[in-house]
Amino acid sequence: MTKTNNAPLSVRNCITSRNHSLVKRIRSLHRREERDRQRKYYIEGMRFVAQAIEASTHIEALVYAPDLIEHPFARHLIKQQQKAGTPCFALADEVMHSIALNDDSQGIGAVVGQRWERLRDINPQHHLCWIVVQTVQSPGNLGTMLRTSEAVGGAGVILLDNYIDVYDPATVRATMAAMFRQRFVRTTLPQLLTWKEQYGCKLVGTSPAASHDYRTVEYSCPTLLFMGGERKGLSQKYQDACDALVKLPMVGRADSLNLAVATGVMLYEIFHQRRKTVR
Amino acid sequence: MTKTNNAPLSVRNCITSRNHSLVKRIRSLHRREERDRQRKYYIEGMRFVAQAIEASTHIEALVYAPDLIEHPFARHLIKQQQKAGTPCFALADEVMHSIALNDDSQGIGAVVGQRWERLRDINPQHHLCWIVVQTVQSPGNLGTMLRTSEAVGGAGVILLDNYIDVYDPATVRATMAAMFRQRFVRTTLPQLLTWKEQYGCKLVGTSPAASHDYRTVEYSCPTLLFMGGERKGLSQKYQDACDALVKLPMVGRADSLNLAVATGVMLYEIFHQRRKTVR
Repeated sequence: MTKTNNAPLSVRNCITSRNHSLVKRIRSLHRREERDRQRKYYIEGMRFVAQAIEASTHIEALVYAPDLIEHPFARHLIKQQQKAGTPCFALADEVMHSIALNDDSQGIGAVVGQRWERLRDINPQHHLCWIVVQTVQSPGNLGTMLRTSEAVGGAGVILLDNYIDVYDPATVRATMAAMFRQRFVRTTLPQLLTWKEQYGCKLVGTSPAASHDYRTVEYSCPTLLFMGGERKGLSQKYQDACDALVKLPMVGRADSLNLAVATGVMLYEIFHQRRKTVR
Repeated sequence: MTKTNNAPLSVRNCITSRNHSLVKRIRSLHRREERDRQRKYYIEGMRFVAQAIEASTHIEALVYAPDLIEHPFARHLIKQQQKAGTPCFALADEVMHSIALNDDSQGIGAVVGQRWERLRDINPQHHLCWIVVQTVQSPGNLGTMLRTSEAVGGAGVILLDNYIDVYDPATVRATMAAMFRQRFVRTTLPQLLTWKEQYGCKLVGTSPAASHDYRTVEYSCPTLLFMGGERKGLSQKYQDACDALVKLPMVGRADSLNLAVATGVMLYEIFHQRRKTVR
């Protein structure tokens, strides 16, 4: 087994031009409008490719630079995918560099399909919670929120309107591959409100002006946790739509928390209350 | 008052060369070795300059580009500092751009003194907690940790050894100016252990392998919260030095949290226990 994995990878038909159609297409996926249009995105690194495969994400094309691969596990992944019939393409080092999102691509990447679900197909009662967001400025914050959601058993994220791209490379990276197991829905506020009524879920928002401390509220399962953007928090319109508003206490001159941290503190409180019930 | 603040700033002796000694010196502060040597750092933006002043941080030089300033409050700050005798320097726009750390400098910046304290001068009993770190890869994570520490009434950060630079621009930025009120100490593990024994503080570390859930432990005041680095967490040596090790529970396939999120969840638990006592 180890012998097989360490055998050199075939370099037949190695793509040596940066202008090859696949290479150009991957570079086009660095831009949101192309990701939206093609409903695909590009991931890189061993951990991401391995976890995408494990989560049965559709791999449209796997690319690798044989000379840049150092880890036997990456070679194993490629051979496994070749056997499984996934289209696999060897790239010259400089071609691989031309599509890299980061310095640590480890010589392996993949074009994968975006996954979107429709709100009406979802029964929220199967999960601890969903995160709801309308505006998040920092893609890294959004990815970190998804990583924490995965850690506590949250289902995923409900995006209101069309501002946020969960497939932004910086978001994907910050999820540390948790994103392949999180679920994504795009909807509007009126649709969300109708759906939550149907299932009797509570929409809980956070605001520094809320009168309830986040620790004094009972979070029913499933909770829809509505987090506002970094700069302005939840606007009045969204606060009005919530069934409950809670605040994270702060002392001294502090007036706000990092969005991913605030979300993490909230998610761990919701998670903790549920664990108590289950015990 | 408003009239005075909106009056145009004097542009006498405007610095127009990127090679002016002050401008070169500010650029040198973008590098850690120069920050360490000079014990200074450069901050930019209205919020940072205002909060540095408010926290009585030593301002060695205030710089501004009259044409880039849009907000009356920035003009007010500059005039206030001119009156107070702080050396203030007008820069041409392109010179200001040459020293900018970010796109949103708002035309104002300052060279300020680093603040360091000696462990032996500190009585930890006056505060809720201190964060202890030896390795943090992401400067943004460290800054976010300081921002949360400020929000819960934590004192600051104790840095073991010489790896971490709390005055890295990305760290400073992520603190959202909380750093002017947080305290900084650099020491070694043996010195920390002697000091904590003297005051009877508990050193609490986090590890996924710990047997105690973070919610089942009582955090005495003051708590020294020891957080490991993003990649490997706390090494065995540091785990052994702790009085207690706790874990943040995770479900499913998640194996780690973002460091700033994990720190935030811990700090809010410590804060919550203290609030209960105070009530």
